[in-house]
Amino acid sequence: MSQNSNQTMSVAIWLDQVLGAAKNNTPAAQASAYAPSNIALSKYWGKREASFNLPVTGSLSISLAEHGTQTGLSVIDAPAHQVILNGEEVDAGQSFVTQLIEWLDRVLPKHIKLRVDTHNTVPTAAGLASSASGFAALTLATNSLMGWHLPEQQLSALARLGSGSASRSLWHGFVKWQAGDRTDGSDSIAEPLEQQWPQLRIGLLTISSQTKAVSSRLGMARTIATSALYQQWPQQAESDLVTIERAIVAGDFETMAKTAEHNAMSMHATMASAWPPLVYWLPESLIQMQKVWQLREQGLPLYLTMDAGPNVKLLFEAKYQQEVQAAFPDIQIITPFA
Amino acid sequence: MSQNSNQTMSVAIWLDQVLGAAKNNTPAAQASAYAPSNIALSKYWGKREASFNLPVTGSLSISLAEHGTQTGLSVIDAPAHQVILNGEEVDAGQSFVTQLIEWLDRVLPKHIKLRVDTHNTVPTAAGLASSASGFAALTLATNSLMGWHLPEQQLSALARLGSGSASRSLWHGFVKWQAGDRTDGSDSIAEPLEQQWPQLRIGLLTISSQTKAVSSRLGMARTIATSALYQQWPQQAESDLVTIERAIVAGDFETMAKTAEHNAMSMHATMASAWPPLVYWLPESLIQMQKVWQLREQGLPLYLTMDAGPNVKLLFEAKYQQEVQAAFPDIQIITPFA
Repeated sequence: MSQNSNQTMSVAIWLDQVLGAAKNNTPAAQASAYAPSNIALSKYWGKREASFNLPVTGSLSISLAEHGTQTGLSVIDAPAHQVILNGEEVDAGQSFVTQLIEWLDRVLPKHIKLRVDTHNTVPTAAGLASSASGFAALTLATNSLMGWHLPEQQLSALARLGSGSASRSLWHGFVKWQAGDRTDGSDSIAEPLEQQWPQLRIGLLTISSQTKAVSSRLGMARTIATSALYQQWPQQAESDLVTIERAIVAGDFETMAKTAEHNAMSMHATMASAWPPLVYWLPESLIQMQKVWQLREQGLPLYLTMDAGPNVKLLFEAKYQQEVQAAFPDIQIITPFA
Repeated sequence: MSQNSNQTMSVAIWLDQVLGAAKNNTPAAQASAYAPSNIALSKYWGKREASFNLPVTGSLSISLAEHGTQTGLSVIDAPAHQVILNGEEVDAGQSFVTQLIEWLDRVLPKHIKLRVDTHNTVPTAAGLASSASGFAALTLATNSLMGWHLPEQQLSALARLGSGSASRSLWHGFVKWQAGDRTDGSDSIAEPLEQQWPQLRIGLLTISSQTKAVSSRLGMARTIATSALYQQWPQQAESDLVTIERAIVAGDFETMAKTAEHNAMSMHATMASAWPPLVYWLPESLIQMQKVWQLREQGLPLYLTMDAGPNVKLLFEAKYQQEVQAAFPDIQIITPFA
């Protein structure tokens, strides 16, 4: 335990410490940055603290290369921030926009208003972690615009304030987010693993790109409050994280992918056992899941993972790409280590 | 704890004790009996002992009135038992028949061979607990054929040897099966509750009547062996059982039905978190489940439960029968206390 683990600190005080005098820097006219989306192989499901978005357990992800968010910022002379999502101005009433503006208001001096021009190459809020790449790109672009020159660890913590999984989206490849135990989250930061896995492939089966009815944030809170089975989750999640990291180091695809699927299914199990039940699967999700399990029974080393949404993501190695494409003609294949 | 809770006893020795001299009675020429199927409101999921089918937790069910099994027995002069299921002779290779013959060979003297003529009014092995009514009817018919005159408690234990949930199918109405703690299961018996609930309705949405790919027996074993979340299940199951029994006594439909749905969803959650994942839901199951949740959000007090299969069972009160029928035109409605 750290020295301050039993103290509480507000986000505002922590931000003052991190940004220091740089908070009042004069911004450049504009800046932009890209961040990849990511898929957790060992999931983040449950907060130990909500204002800093501190997780109950660590998690480990793979970034989605060219699937992510490009965000441009420019200083505007206006009373409020403007948010353009995929070319269209969006209402401040949408929860994604509310959270984005809340983040900007926290980190910027009050008088600075921005036009935020954000382009997702993945659907928003459909379980493809676009809030992860969105807040990571926003953090990188703001760091550049404001001339903060913050170290990556602090950028990861800043991105986390917007969305927990954004802490992992600052890098390509495998990224591990430590749970940490400090109340200000200063040890709850992500860092990339050095391992590369050029043969690894991710397949996206997009079942729906509609905004989900229950956000991850609310889903986590409901699960923790009402699922008895969730009490066992932190222990499994920590154990899965260790297994997956070791399998990555060893280049052991089967162990890595099997543990990732087991982890994802167990996370969805904690949701199903919440009250009211939280089931993000659509009938079409189940069709694709059953297809994966059938192919695997027939000998194909193909595994799935799912986030808090209906979309199914496949894990496989390059040598099976043809078989996977034949079975799933609409699949989008990502090469995370291109 | 009972005196013999730390001893082990074979099923054969226990049967000799229970049947005593009656084991060698001369059978009547024929006998028959009916037993209703049942749906657990608080589920049985997991054995603490396999040869006696002893459960990890207690469970509580509602019997399905005229949905059940009628079994006729007649003594035949043949080298082996004959099993007729719904009018057709079935191979000894089928697991239901294997278990049925195994049960007969345990309880009958070796020289007695029977023709077993069993009629289900519900599909076999589709999660409608036809093994429950099947073994309960077989137990009752055998008791009659052999002139055992056993007390109901021992009949419940005998039925349990065939299928755990059969211990609850000897009665109509609400039935509670105590987990017990003795190794011979002599305290793991079911008994009916005295409460009647004439307004209670059960709706059956039959999604598939095909035999399921993984039997409940194997599903339970896989779940216990591989699901970390299952470790939390016994505690929830025992607590749900208490809540449901109290709600029945109080006539509190919402608490009873809500707890039953939460219990069923949590059981399915333990399955989904097994390895390989065990998902009995079909796409059509999910469609019906979502429909129930939508109707409930709109104010209809409608709840669901599911067993180890794809079929969805609804719980509601008589006064909402019209709305339920309008929403689910193919529903079969059961009046458990007709």
